[in-house]
Amino acid sequence: MHTREMNEELLSSLKVNQTRLMEDIHYTCQWGTGEKWGSGETETGMSRLALSDADKKARDWFVQATEALGCHTTVDSMGNIFAVRPGVRNDKPPTYVGSHLDTQPTGGRYDGILGVTAGVEMLKVLADNWVETEYPVGVVNWTNEEGARFPMSMSSSGVWAGAIPLESAHNLREVHPGTATMKSELERIGYLGSVPASHEHTPMAAHFELHIEQGPLLEIANKKIGIVKGVQAYKWLTITVTGRDTHTGTTDLKSRADALLCASKMILHSHRLATTNGCLASTGILNLKPGSTNTVPGSVTFSLDIRAQKDSTVSRMLHHITTDFPLIASGTDVLGSNANCTPGLPCSVSITEDFSSPATLFHPECISAVTSAASSALAELPNSKNLVMEMTSGAGHDSVYTSKRCPTSMIFVPCREGVSHNPEEYCKPEDCALGAQVLLQSVLRFDRRRDE
Amino acid sequence: MHTREMNEELLSSLKVNQTRLMEDIHYTCQWGTGEKWGSGETETGMSRLALSDADKKARDWFVQATEALGCHTTVDSMGNIFAVRPGVRNDKPPTYVGSHLDTQPTGGRYDGILGVTAGVEMLKVLADNWVETEYPVGVVNWTNEEGARFPMSMSSSGVWAGAIPLESAHNLREVHPGTATMKSELERIGYLGSVPASHEHTPMAAHFELHIEQGPLLEIANKKIGIVKGVQAYKWLTITVTGRDTHTGTTDLKSRADALLCASKMILHSHRLATTNGCLASTGILNLKPGSTNTVPGSVTFSLDIRAQKDSTVSRMLHHITTDFPLIASGTDVLGSNANCTPGLPCSVSITEDFSSPATLFHPECISAVTSAASSALAELPNSKNLVMEMTSGAGHDSVYTSKRCPTSMIFVPCREGVSHNPEEYCKPEDCALGAQVLLQSVLRFDRRRDE
Ligand SMILES: NC(=O)NCCC(=O)O
Ligand SMILES: NC(=O)NCCC(=O)O
Repeated sequence: MHTREMNEELLSSLKVNQTRLMEDIHYTCQWGTGEKWGSGETETGMSRLALSDADKKARDWFVQATEALGCHTTVDSMGNIFAVRPGVRNDKPPTYVGSHLDTQPTGGRYDGILGVTAGVEMLKVLADNWVETEYPVGVVNWTNEEGARFPMSMSSSGVWAGAIPLESAHNLREVHPGTATMKSELERIGYLGSVPASHEHTPMAAHFELHIEQGPLLEIANKKIGIVKGVQAYKWLTITVTGRDTHTGTTDLKSRADALLCASKMILHSHRLATTNGCLASTGILNLKPGSTNTVPGSVTFSLDIRAQKDSTVSRMLHHITTDFPLIASGTDVLGSNANCTPGLPCSVSITEDFSSPATLFHPECISAVTSAASSALAELPNSKNLVMEMTSGAGHDSVYTSKRCPTSMIFVPCREGVSHNPEEYCKPEDCALGAQVLLQSVLRFDRRRDE
Repeated sequence: MHTREMNEELLSSLKVNQTRLMEDIHYTCQWGTGEKWGSGETETGMSRLALSDADKKARDWFVQATEALGCHTTVDSMGNIFAVRPGVRNDKPPTYVGSHLDTQPTGGRYDGILGVTAGVEMLKVLADNWVETEYPVGVVNWTNEEGARFPMSMSSSGVWAGAIPLESAHNLREVHPGTATMKSELERIGYLGSVPASHEHTPMAAHFELHIEQGPLLEIANKKIGIVKGVQAYKWLTITVTGRDTHTGTTDLKSRADALLCASKMILHSHRLATTNGCLASTGILNLKPGSTNTVPGSVTFSLDIRAQKDSTVSRMLHHITTDFPLIASGTDVLGSNANCTPGLPCSVSITEDFSSPATLFHPECISAVTSAASSALAELPNSKNLVMEMTSGAGHDSVYTSKRCPTSMIFVPCREGVSHNPEEYCKPEDCALGAQVLLQSVLRFDRRRDE
């Protein structure tokens, strides 16, 4: 049946299969199973770092599942996998659903995975009902969205969008001691595709992404669907503090250039700056050298992730950090950082900006498709009018980069206590299915409206 | 010639060979050569972790060099190597010279190495001059003095002294991700000896140790020889802070249990406590989990090394730490630790004491042997009376443990700017030789006086 010929009622009657969706989610979680946190079979986290052996297996599943549903798949030079289901007309780019199959080292079963499996579920619903869309529809699995293994989030949608040079992304080195680069790992697992990673080579009519919220707002407000209007701004910095290796037992406090003490003051200071400026600052990685109980560390490197609703707030934070950290390193008191401290010898500090994602606004047409899809999907629930909420994403998503090249928006569903990047991340099956239903309906609605 | 028959003048005429000593030092530094810091051939640091392949080669050299000089060598169950040169009478234990051949990961060419090579030089002087000592003399290379790889300093002299159980030492696990234990590494490099590691099995009449000061006091005071009367007290703790892994972009500051922010406050607080209590507190190792830029760390483990002249000060520090750290973890303000901070969720903390070395006093007879040896060795220098200084060691040494079982003392020589546990650690050749001369003369004097 051609979507053109389906009225609103018929369209809304196309329904995702909750059981099948949940089976796909948990089936794919056999690759990279993480920490067990409960007694149930699915009560484990995930640890499927980008381009690991486990990620390769999840990718193989994705290719096989989408091809079995009549899709043509291509892999680009960043390992992004595009699965396309033909439409009645194929002279214009597909409408895509996308997300990612990689996870944090101690991640959960929903972040990214829900979005990709919901895309596969969409293909199944279309196939089951012999639906023909006007234009092709696609599902894309983006590579290394997390930025957990190769320290740049959304790196491969960034290359696709022309915002990150291919070479920079290929040369990203894994964060934990190891010599692998994104390129070497793409080659190793057989996902270094021959197609250029580019919106020009693989254009999209639109990009829709379903994701767990990863924060607590929907749950607190008792809402079922978040209509995501944009994503907050963020920057990732690497800070290196250099002092001097010395003996912990023979070097008095004033003769030390203690890089870790300095770094501790900076981490605390970044938290205080975030408090004052009403934004976020976080350190997730810290490595020191030489790493011996009785040697004062001469070198510390740490990450700093700064986020705010407004670009100007992120810029102000960056300004404070680049001003204050060298002062802290030199031994100057900044906001009481030296109270009751013995002044030591100066350290030096270098600050590099590795990644910047300005505040993003999604596209009105996609937001509108999601809004009407949500009201159709929620119609049968009591109090249905009060179950949606417009919101801004705290986390980055590949939709940030697709939005630079095609109309884009996102759908959020609540997750327990807002906890994510944690093995205990959890989204109720009915919420997963509801989100997938909104996703399916958004794509169909967008497809129908394309020629208007 | 029998030492009994040598008068003071003849005894003092026995002289170490500076060139030969320096050749031995630098020759052995071919195993585990570290970071290059200057253009000269010997201007590199050392990285010879205990029981590494490089340490095995240095040990093989020690066994071969001492056996070639007429010693009998034995290896005990901690890999301590004892080389004994017979005396005229062999019915009493030898007088030993000892130190260690292992180094810090970014250590220098003198810490430990000087003491062992000076022992070998002593054997060469005795051999060259056909000297017969009254009782046997020995040189011992102690295993893992640094505690840098297996996190317990002086671990093997500690077992020898009966202060550390053999099993605890054998089961020590290397600090950097790896599965090796002391026992497995002793086996692997072929130094798990069959002789029990015990002062009962391998008794000593006395233990003398030559070492670089590792601090700046001799250099600042323009002294050549430090007569070490004791060693300050220290304890090593492991602190584990547990919070919750969460997303850096979606978790507001008040919903975080940020283990690294907590640990940073604790590290800063320990420094403030050390300042207030006039002692030292240092963190040399810090590991966090999961280690991803966009995950707030849920777990941080760090080392804390506390030192003070008095046991009571170390106890007071321990009391403050065990009182204050749980308060900091729970979010209570301790000495302004929370100023301008957003209160977050509580973390928990556990503190374990891994190692404790109370303040040590050396033996008057050994100190007196060193004092007269120093005045003999310095006699020819201008202003010779003003070149010695009595002092307490800031660093731990195997002499701490030998002193629990036999008369012990130490000799210090100045090192450049007091810098140690650093590749640029440096001791002038003439100071190395002067120290070795005092060591040789101390042993001979002690040997002669034993029956008095
Ligand atoms: N969704 C998600 O966790 N993305 C990772 C990128 C980020 O750090 O926000
Ligand atoms: N000499 C020396 O550096 N020993 C290591 C034991 C200590 O930490 O003091």
